[in-house]
Amino acid sequence: MTKKAFDQKLKQLQLHHRRLLQRKNRPQRHGNGIFERYEHPVLTAEHTPLEWRYDFDRASNPHLMTRLGINSVFNAGAIEWNGRILLGARVEGWDRKSFFAFAESKTGVDGFRFWDYPVRMPELEPAETNVYDLRLVRHEDGWIYGLFCAERHDDSRPGDLSAALARCGIARTRDLVNWERLPDLKTPALHQRNCVLHPEFVNGQYAFYTRPMSDFAATGSGDGIGWGLCPDITNAVITRETIIDPRFYHTIKEGKNGLGPAPLKTRAGWLHLAHGVRNTAAGMRYVLYLFLCDLREPWKLIKAPGGYFMAPEGEERVGDVSNVLFANGWVARPNGQVFIYYASSDTRTHVATSTVDRLLDYVCNTPEDGLRSSVCVQQRCRLIEKNLRRCRRLSQ
Amino acid sequence: MTKKAFDQKLKQLQLHHRRLLQRKNRPQRHGNGIFERYEHPVLTAEHTPLEWRYDFDRASNPHLMTRLGINSVFNAGAIEWNGRILLGARVEGWDRKSFFAFAESKTGVDGFRFWDYPVRMPELEPAETNVYDLRLVRHEDGWIYGLFCAERHDDSRPGDLSAALARCGIARTRDLVNWERLPDLKTPALHQRNCVLHPEFVNGQYAFYTRPMSDFAATGSGDGIGWGLCPDITNAVITRETIIDPRFYHTIKEGKNGLGPAPLKTRAGWLHLAHGVRNTAAGMRYVLYLFLCDLREPWKLIKAPGGYFMAPEGEERVGDVSNVLFANGWVARPNGQVFIYYASSDTRTHVATSTVDRLLDYVCNTPEDGLRSSVCVQQRCRLIEKNLRRCRRLSQ
Repeated sequence: MTKKAFDQKLKQLQLHHRRLLQRKNRPQRHGNGIFERYEHPVLTAEHTPLEWRYDFDRASNPHLMTRLGINSVFNAGAIEWNGRILLGARVEGWDRKSFFAFAESKTGVDGFRFWDYPVRMPELEPAETNVYDLRLVRHEDGWIYGLFCAERHDDSRPGDLSAALARCGIARTRDLVNWERLPDLKTPALHQRNCVLHPEFVNGQYAFYTRPMSDFAATGSGDGIGWGLCPDITNAVITRETIIDPRFYHTIKEGKNGLGPAPLKTRAGWLHLAHGVRNTAAGMRYVLYLFLCDLREPWKLIKAPGGYFMAPEGEERVGDVSNVLFANGWVARPNGQVFIYYASSDTRTHVATSTVDRLLDYVCNTPEDGLRSSVCVQQRCRLIEKNLRRCRRLSQ
Repeated sequence: MTKKAFDQKLKQLQLHHRRLLQRKNRPQRHGNGIFERYEHPVLTAEHTPLEWRYDFDRASNPHLMTRLGINSVFNAGAIEWNGRILLGARVEGWDRKSFFAFAESKTGVDGFRFWDYPVRMPELEPAETNVYDLRLVRHEDGWIYGLFCAERHDDSRPGDLSAALARCGIARTRDLVNWERLPDLKTPALHQRNCVLHPEFVNGQYAFYTRPMSDFAATGSGDGIGWGLCPDITNAVITRETIIDPRFYHTIKEGKNGLGPAPLKTRAGWLHLAHGVRNTAAGMRYVLYLFLCDLREPWKLIKAPGGYFMAPEGEERVGDVSNVLFANGWVARPNGQVFIYYASSDTRTHVATSTVDRLLDYVCNTPEDGLRSSVCVQQRCRLIEKNLRRCRRLSQ
């Protein structure tokens, strides 16, 4: 490629990229009233800086080709930071390895730009193969914590290349750039994914949401979203786990469930966003659901609306791992606005917006799961009857 | 929300809904000649009445949000009723529980409107968790029967939340509103799904199509579409099941197969619509196929065209359970017109139209499955040779 052609192609790449980053993102029309979806994802592989993927030097990259590809940007932690919204995304290279990277936006729904460098998260030991699914928490001890899954091969099963061990990695920071890695969480269960730190001390201790499982990723084992306390986060050991939100037959969390981001503190209680999984003839289906826990006793579930809060729609349905919505980041602004960052099919990151008022209305006034067809029909007929009575009254 | 804003939003919702229900549905161009697909699905979650999903009372729903969401409308039974076509659809809430609801249309291809209330199907016992996949049959005994799958947890495997038992539920009605529930069908096999009642007595007995399986949903067990007689439908016991349409290696029904709706009575025999399943790296693939049975001895298969009749296309390919076509309802009008109601990917309901003549031509003149590549190439070469000879003759 001549220097002229090289420079021209580079300009085109940069123009194309700039346009993507400047694209406005409007709410979709005809939503369900509970939240708004948006026209476009907020982060995709195409949003990562060109400098992360291309070598701009004509001497070493004469064809101006992608040198280190990026496959997907998903499962983002979220935090408000100097009036902006920061996403700590899971970025996956063409090599299948994930890492964390921050992108920031003024609006929270568009204009997300990655910082110059991804996070250089300290490694505990070389056996640590992959890290993913960051949960960011501003804890009342003054630190910002990042909890994530740290995965390694299960060397007790040398013949099985897919046998993995999942642990909860813990790191903390003051500036989101320099991270201090702490020892992994220790719990009675062998596997830990989807662990989340509660933002406040409980009885003077650090409180963790856990997801004990005996198997790496199978459904059918494990009992639900757990809870445990530990006095020292620099050597976090939980000796007693209790289940605060169990799985249940023929619900959206029949197969497995796990917490998303840390809960939002509201006047009515701790508001939780989680994912539920069931099996289908075409693999697992991941949907999102909400529940509410007591303000003073956060391990007590007080409201559980039946069914899902969000399920895959349209292009969200298909991706590297299809039929998956997953969320590990949300932000509630002081004015009550809520930004929910959810990923679709392990591929891209979207936003949905709502308000604390609407989410609490949804959680407190949606009927609980009827658990069988007959009861669910009764619930619905009551709603229909109320509406039809009202329509008749109005038409009189 | 102010009263004015609430009323305005409600009007918008109603306008949007009305437009959807009034949308014309035209046949797709460039079909295969055997049947016509249509531009739009005939029933989706969005077709269900707003009264079923919203609470219209501003006092109890100040944000006018969806209160009891509906996820999908699929796997519909069908029947002609006072000159209209009625679908008895499987409606699934956000909570994953299914129920039945009727929607009716003058044309059979568009304008389907749900009745005011879903079916209040009597429950046999509280352990019955989910009901689905209604087969409607006008039997010569004078009743209209609905057979469906009634599913419960398999309590013999308490540790496995996904272990389920599937039985054949039986109910009957004269008006499609009031249903009398009869005891579940009893057969030698543990699991029964896709059971269908034959519309006529056979040797003075009720005749059932069954699908004996030893496992709940796995492929590889069970032997195909079965057949059995029983004298008393108010206590239906089948003591002997024979297989009339077996599974077969490397066909479209290698994994499992099951009957769709009750067969259509034609001059050439009982015309059947069924589904066949095979396994893939991305889960199971469900396609539809036809076969023909003897008029006087309905348990004797007389014509079996090779391969599938319909397979997922375009948007049909993707949904809650992707790569699935399933049909449990069709209607043949006295003028020979046939409406086939099929669902795609456990999400939405479509129509395809054909005629009895065309379907019989298809069933009688499509070569049988060659069962191996070499024979299938011979079949195709015979067809090509015939066509090329003809083309040459015509061009001379």
